[in-house]
Amino acid sequence: MINYNFKKPVFIVNPKSYLYGDDLLKLAKISNGLAEKYDIDILFTGQLVDLPKIIENAHLIVTAQHMDHLTPGRGMGHVLPDALKNIGVKAVVLNHAENPLTLSNLDKTIRRADELGLITIVCADTVQQCKAVAELEPNMIICEPTSLIGTGTTSESSYREETTSAIKHVNSDILVLQAAGVSTGEDVRQVIREGADGTGGTSGIIKAPDWEAKLEEMVSSLSRM
Amino acid sequence: MINYNFKKPVFIVNPKSYLYGDDLLKLAKISNGLAEKYDIDILFTGQLVDLPKIIENAHLIVTAQHMDHLTPGRGMGHVLPDALKNIGVKAVVLNHAENPLTLSNLDKTIRRADELGLITIVCADTVQQCKAVAELEPNMIICEPTSLIGTGTTSESSYREETTSAIKHVNSDILVLQAAGVSTGEDVRQVIREGADGTGGTSGIIKAPDWEAKLEEMVSSLSRM
Amino acid sequence: MINYNFKKPVFIVNPKSYLYGDDLLKLAKISNGLAEKYDIDILFTGQLVDLPKIIENAHLIVTAQHMDHLTPGRGMGHVLPDALKNIGVKAVVLNHAENPLTLSNLDKTIRRADELGLITIVCADTVQQCKAVAELEPNMIICEPTSLIGTGTTSESSYREETTSAIKHVNSDILVLQAAGVSTGEDVRQVIREGADGTGGTSGIIKAPDWEAKLEEMVSSLSRM
Amino acid sequence: MINYNFKKPVFIVNPKSYLYGDDLLKLAKISNGLAEKYDIDILFTGQLVDLPKIIENAHLIVTAQHMDHLTPGRGMGHVLPDALKNIGVKAVVLNHAENPLTLSNLDKTIRRADELGLITIVCADTVQQCKAVAELEPNMIICEPTSLIGTGTTSESSYREETTSAIKHVNSDILVLQAAGVSTGEDVRQVIREGADGTGGTSGIIKAPDWEAKLEEMVSSLSRM
Repeated sequence: MINYNFKKPVFIVNPKSYLYGDDLLKLAKISNGLAEKYDIDILFTGQLVDLPKIIENAHLIVTAQHMDHLTPGRGMGHVLPDALKNIGVKAVVLNHAENPLTLSNLDKTIRRADELGLITIVCADTVQQCKAVAELEPNMIICEPTSLIGTGTTSESSYREETTSAIKHVNSDILVLQAAGVSTGEDVRQVIREGADGTGGTSGIIKAPDWEAKLEEMVSSLSRM
Repeated sequence: MINYNFKKPVFIVNPKSYLYGDDLLKLAKISNGLAEKYDIDILFTGQLVDLPKIIENAHLIVTAQHMDHLTPGRGMGHVLPDALKNIGVKAVVLNHAENPLTLSNLDKTIRRADELGLITIVCADTVQQCKAVAELEPNMIICEPTSLIGTGTTSESSYREETTSAIKHVNSDILVLQAAGVSTGEDVRQVIREGADGTGGTSGIIKAPDWEAKLEEMVSSLSRM
Repeated sequence: MINYNFKKPVFIVNPKSYLYGDDLLKLAKISNGLAEKYDIDILFTGQLVDLPKIIENAHLIVTAQHMDHLTPGRGMGHVLPDALKNIGVKAVVLNHAENPLTLSNLDKTIRRADELGLITIVCADTVQQCKAVAELEPNMIICEPTSLIGTGTTSESSYREETTSAIKHVNSDILVLQAAGVSTGEDVRQVIREGADGTGGTSGIIKAPDWEAKLEEMVSSLSRM
Repeated sequence: MINYNFKKPVFIVNPKSYLYGDDLLKLAKISNGLAEKYDIDILFTGQLVDLPKIIENAHLIVTAQHMDHLTPGRGMGHVLPDALKNIGVKAVVLNHAENPLTLSNLDKTIRRADELGLITIVCADTVQQCKAVAELEPNMIICEPTSLIGTGTTSESSYREETTSAIKHVNSDILVLQAAGVSTGEDVRQVIREGADGTGGTSGIIKAPDWEAKLEEMVSSLSRM
């Protein structure tokens, strides 16, 4: 993993494919303002074609939702890590349940990110998968039971505590994000109290009637931890 | 397929993952100048994060190298067609041998492109695959024997004539591009004389010492057909 | 496609992964008896490790549920066509929605089957996919809207008539099987009356309280067409 | 992992897709005779349709080259673990470089094997992948640099010692197999001396002019360790 001095706890805003264009940029600007106001690290993901505009928001850690492990050359339709780095992308999420990687490709892609100085954030489901991913030495692991994705249901405390502890036992330098179903300030406080290094959201934010109010509720809870 | 009034024969500049950033933009500008000078349609592909800058070159048909068939919503790390359309992408290449699609996903992705008004360019290998793809009604088919990709070797005349004829027999509205190993003005004239509706290149252009001279050699041959 | 003189209409019993071992063999014996009694061609699929026992039922066209396109050599964990042929497998189903193939691999696998003299049965969903598959020249196409798989709901008459007609228009030598949700003698008669060359079932048979009675109801309806 | 009392060091004969039918059975019989003569555990893999005959060789640990993680039900063309168990398969190899699994599916498939009492043997490439796999708790890990597969070149001593040590550090109950390019009695002695719990081969055996002589050379070296 690359060396990066995170302000902990961190927050990830992950609009997946829910938003693009102006809506995505609007959410990025809100996130950028809150990152500055509360002096926290917000990782912000988006569609690749929209990242150049997102990058103008200087307080965000702009994050790709996927990349491949190739080097410049052949590779039609693949996401070239060097192209991401070149426009100012700082981080990449890998192995989300909606875009799973083979173990071999996951390892290779983390190594390519390391070469280029990109932050790696890897998703994992069971305790055993969390430990396996920890051995691959990413910067962060997002623990999320696959069955809960998109449901708005938070994971069990026992799951969160067990996965956080298992990862730290393998490598205490890895930040652990517990984000499943987190959608309120109280959810944020709860998962951080239990030992997570960060949290975040997708549908809990996107589906809120007032993005700014919702994000401020969550982010302000984080900053007071 | 969407209705689009192409200036035939067309040309595709497909830098795959060979180029990104400033180099890619440089090649785009050269291509844009030649598209204007010779009044031809040039499809130009690039890394997704670089497409917003490429789009400023108004004479190019800016083309994604891949997309998925999802609609806005869940889908982490997927390429959302609506996001491409929104920034001004006009076309998409699908099913390249380096990024093959299941038959089902290929069908669904062409249908999503049709909904959004995106030009579809689908790669195919054997005569039977060319006919199968033609039944899916894309705007263009690129015929290329997979074994020749990246070799700089042109396909056989017999292959080109057989695939072009087979596609036209299924659906005469589909444009056929014959581009395998095409890297000189003479190559361009040859494949167009044989009945192709277009051609193009990757390594034949990228590896040339002078991109502008090489592209002008190829494009000017095309425009005189 | 290989040359094979089918007794039409044909029937496919496809237990997928519902059955194995003794239960699968029991269903095979029932099917074998009915194939003989009614003098019809029954294609019968099963788990690969169970096929050697199924093959002892001489009136069945024993069918693999998938194979790869490799030739003997490297290829760990792949299904070698030559190994299937060698034990007496006669046919293979390809591209089921639960096991979709890239267009390129589907083409290659049909060609390998042709080389070895194996009957090819390819699944397809939309009208356009049915036509595309027809261009690849398999012996049979199973038309089934993916959304209906496992639901017990039959496809619409309009879907069945349109797909059958579209396939026959591309290549009238291809047998068309309409099997979505077919689970009664009346369903069988209906799809055959509409022009299908065959039908069959999975859950409609497996979930019936009396397999023999259910199968005889369906198969006897077929034989009287 | 399931509890299994291996005679160490173990040996794996892995003919991949090189052999099938009578040739595969011939190699199985030779392996069976040597397993008995030298009182060692030989894991023997083969095409799924050939496994029922291989199983008659009672001294072999008969091994599938792949399986899926489904339970009985839907799943067309998938390899049902219960069907393997039912015919007497004792072990399964997973995640070979020629058949890589997503991290999530690898975890799920090991868990299904555990449920059914099947031995799990998982392939891994780099030191980091070896450690990650060890966290998933299979019975054995085969360490092999992907770049060497099929080349007949042995891995470096440093690679073998580092991967063995790394795996044992994570979980000392896991047996480590070092088999890359191993093709002589001396190769066998070397890797076992360095700390491996087993070894084996594919092309080193298959391509030998006399299978029995070659296997006996390797296996007898193993038994004297």
